[in-house]
Amino acid sequence: MSNRTYGIIGTGAIGGFYGAKLQKAGHQVSFLLRSDYHHVAENGLIVKSVDGDFTLPEVDAYNDVKKMPNCDVIVVALKATQNHHLPELLPPLINENTVVLLLQNGINVEPEISKFIGENTLISGLCFVCSNKIGQGQIHHIDYGIITLGQYAPNHQATGITEQMSQIARDFESAGIPIELSEDLLLARWKKLVWNIPYNSLSVILNARTDEIMANPDTRRLAEQIMGEVLAGAKSCGRILGDYFIQKMLDHTENMKSYLTSMKLDYDGKRPLEVEAIVGNPLRMARKAGVDLPMISMLYRQLKFLDVRNRLGTGHHS
Amino acid sequence: MSNRTYGIIGTGAIGGFYGAKLQKAGHQVSFLLRSDYHHVAENGLIVKSVDGDFTLPEVDAYNDVKKMPNCDVIVVALKATQNHHLPELLPPLINENTVVLLLQNGINVEPEISKFIGENTLISGLCFVCSNKIGQGQIHHIDYGIITLGQYAPNHQATGITEQMSQIARDFESAGIPIELSEDLLLARWKKLVWNIPYNSLSVILNARTDEIMANPDTRRLAEQIMGEVLAGAKSCGRILGDYFIQKMLDHTENMKSYLTSMKLDYDGKRPLEVEAIVGNPLRMARKAGVDLPMISMLYRQLKFLDVRNRLGTGHHS
Repeated sequence: MSNRTYGIIGTGAIGGFYGAKLQKAGHQVSFLLRSDYHHVAENGLIVKSVDGDFTLPEVDAYNDVKKMPNCDVIVVALKATQNHHLPELLPPLINENTVVLLLQNGINVEPEISKFIGENTLISGLCFVCSNKIGQGQIHHIDYGIITLGQYAPNHQATGITEQMSQIARDFESAGIPIELSEDLLLARWKKLVWNIPYNSLSVILNARTDEIMANPDTRRLAEQIMGEVLAGAKSCGRILGDYFIQKMLDHTENMKSYLTSMKLDYDGKRPLEVEAIVGNPLRMARKAGVDLPMISMLYRQLKFLDVRNRLGTGHHS
Repeated sequence: MSNRTYGIIGTGAIGGFYGAKLQKAGHQVSFLLRSDYHHVAENGLIVKSVDGDFTLPEVDAYNDVKKMPNCDVIVVALKATQNHHLPELLPPLINENTVVLLLQNGINVEPEISKFIGENTLISGLCFVCSNKIGQGQIHHIDYGIITLGQYAPNHQATGITEQMSQIARDFESAGIPIELSEDLLLARWKKLVWNIPYNSLSVILNARTDEIMANPDTRRLAEQIMGEVLAGAKSCGRILGDYFIQKMLDHTENMKSYLTSMKLDYDGKRPLEVEAIVGNPLRMARKAGVDLPMISMLYRQLKFLDVRNRLGTGHHS
């Protein structure tokens, strides 16, 4: 096992789960927390997981980045809606060789983040995991867990598989976290959006689980048509996905258990939705390339309306 | 005043209101009722109206078309979702000179109905009225009331203003109902859809009143974009509406009081939605002409999903 040290920014459903797995495997891990700081500093982390429950009675918890020790890898596990905190959080943690690992949904979030970390390596991890925070310092890992890693380069140039990606992959795999490596981060992000855009959006707009969306012929067809628009968006960025990939995602979703999407969980928790990262950014990337995505544009505006009203507290639905 | 007699098929918010106005003005009016028959036969109709409340203690009520007397004009005021009853309801009422006046939302509903009435005249009336049935034999007329009349001809050929349209217009106007005459029914229907498609659809999908849709910049823009698609649909049928018409509808809606749309009232009452007449038919007309309307297609599928679930009784929203 390497002696790479990890710092987790955002110890929630994602950061808490993966950070706890790394510490359990023997890595030195520091955790940044906000509201759960006192509880976790005193009681540690509890992970209930399909792969086996475990407890970390002592974790290295912080509520101030300036007090955190040097870490080799900074794992940013905030929701994309919290990225406005990064100009303040990241610079104190960045040294010459620090690698930033961004575990975040959406697309085209890296250019903004790369501004705060200079020439340092930025790797993104696309998590396919069902995990919820169910209480202070308590994570419930319900299913899956694989992370697809890809490295960012300016203008979304494909980097191939770098040594730093491989090192992180080895650490995660030794902690029982399956890893897939992608030579082309932007392609990986578009592929993930083929699922994320239709199901996240429709689950919020229609108050529906994935199985309800698939069981109704109209919404099933709608999901398929939206996927077609995502492929058109990918193509506008020079990333070609065959139509077979749509069928693969539909089959995959039909064979999944019934889930609420991450956006629906945020909606129900009255938290801000990751609309810009997941829906707005792909729209803007395609539009910049001269391609209009009318269905996704409609989802975007419907979601923005619902997001604003949801957080005003007047409630979505009678 | 003419001695034209009227038969009202469907004595609800629309048929009850306009039929009562005609009777009050001195016309012989027969009313067909279903669930309210006994109550109305005994107690008559009560109309609460912004233009002045009135009561008709005695009305000529029927619960069987076969018992109804001959009428010069048969007013079909059922929801479009009830048109499957018309093959049974209409033929017994049709004589050589009977005119059918269809008061119904949507577009392209006439070809099917014309099958049951042979060569008889079919006139459609597009009602711009806020009226609700608030109890057995009780109508609440909240606002507006104007009807746009247009005559149907095969293939939606424009008929110009016919003598039969003018006669009905005179009767309605003498009963205090404002009338506008259209030379081209299909054009009038597309114009009405410019308002009906965005506001009916979004009000159900987003559980929103018209003023909420207009107050939020995203849904306001969305309404505008959907209107653009309706114009493309109209154009595919050879009906050209200038972009100024979109601005007119937006301004008009901003200056309206806050309303729930008819589709939202149906949704909240767990009644079937007029999705096919208002959203499905325009889509299919445009598609037949080779024009795709992706946003309206998405609204259609979202509404069909919500309609089915709504009537299954599992409720739309948590």
